[in-house]
Amino acid sequence: MKKHRIIFSGSGGQGVITASVILAEAAALYEGLEAVQVQAYGPEARGGATRGDVIISDTDIYFPMVIQPEALVSLTQTAYDKFLGNIQPGGLLLTDSHFVTLNKKVDAYQTALSMYKTVMDKIGKPIVFNICMLGAITGLTHFVKPESIIKALETRFPAEIMDINKKALEIGLELAEGHGIS
Amino acid sequence: MKKHRIIFSGSGGQGVITASVILAEAAALYEGLEAVQVQAYGPEARGGATRGDVIISDTDIYFPMVIQPEALVSLTQTAYDKFLGNIQPGGLLLTDSHFVTLNKKVDAYQTALSMYKTVMDKIGKPIVFNICMLGAITGLTHFVKPESIIKALETRFPAEIMDINKKALEIGLELAEGHGIS
Repeated sequence: MKKHRIIFSGSGGQGVITASVILAEAAALYEGLEAVQVQAYGPEARGGATRGDVIISDTDIYFPMVIQPEALVSLTQTAYDKFLGNIQPGGLLLTDSHFVTLNKKVDAYQTALSMYKTVMDKIGKPIVFNICMLGAITGLTHFVKPESIIKALETRFPAEIMDINKKALEIGLELAEGHGIS
Repeated sequence: MKKHRIIFSGSGGQGVITASVILAEAAALYEGLEAVQVQAYGPEARGGATRGDVIISDTDIYFPMVIQPEALVSLTQTAYDKFLGNIQPGGLLLTDSHFVTLNKKVDAYQTALSMYKTVMDKIGKPIVFNICMLGAITGLTHFVKPESIIKALETRFPAEIMDINKKALEIGLELAEGHGIS
């Protein structure tokens, strides 16, 4: 297994950091891998932008920031414009068609899924949008198994909201079906 | 201002990660500094140990992991035994006398405060133990102002629990009085 590097980016309130923590926990606690999760707070953070980096590996991780992500999630146009150029050649960009227009070319697989709209139509609660996104990125990359994400969610959230968490994750996995990098 | 490096260590459930995130947010969002917060999940995480690294600086931060912390918080004997040797010469160790016995020598200022017991006596809710610890480490190091911690807490927690958060922070600041590295 090589090192998998991923950047989650968006605006505060979209649940980007929580998603990155859950992915790191799923990999480390339930798949026996090494994982590092980093949040850098710079001038962007003061403008409401937010970014979480995750590295997943089966060997030690010495440098935890992600320079060239294999997978990039950008949930605002600003984040898309800022980070798209950093993506690893042949990598993958995931965004949401409600928030971002794919208006740039890059040597990567770009996919805009209708996650936000589907979550609102089928669940009606924007709070699980990030879990749906986590389902989609898991379906697109296979960095970890969906079952590991579910276990990490169960540790973090009360039982009462696990039903909508699982439903949101499932929606994301379904939207990702037929797309991906592996 | 030089770079301030701090490691928070303990066991899952002691609120170590939350404390490290709040400190990074206080520095970056309310004091105009750069901050990076890292969680590394390795074999220790699977054993229930937990660690959050924070770097605070007024210039760019290129390497976000902390090798030699200026300040180390260790809330279990295991964490104390593991990390004490890494502390920067002349640095500071904070622990809680309920959880840890200071049984090692190191070229650093070691202080065991009675945070857990005081929180239980005066507030009765162990959930704010980490906020009390954040008050103590702020009082000991002055890396950020207590007001910035309060602002970061207000963004993160509902208004109903701000009273006990502030009380816990205040207890920590009081316990730290007369001690410290600056």
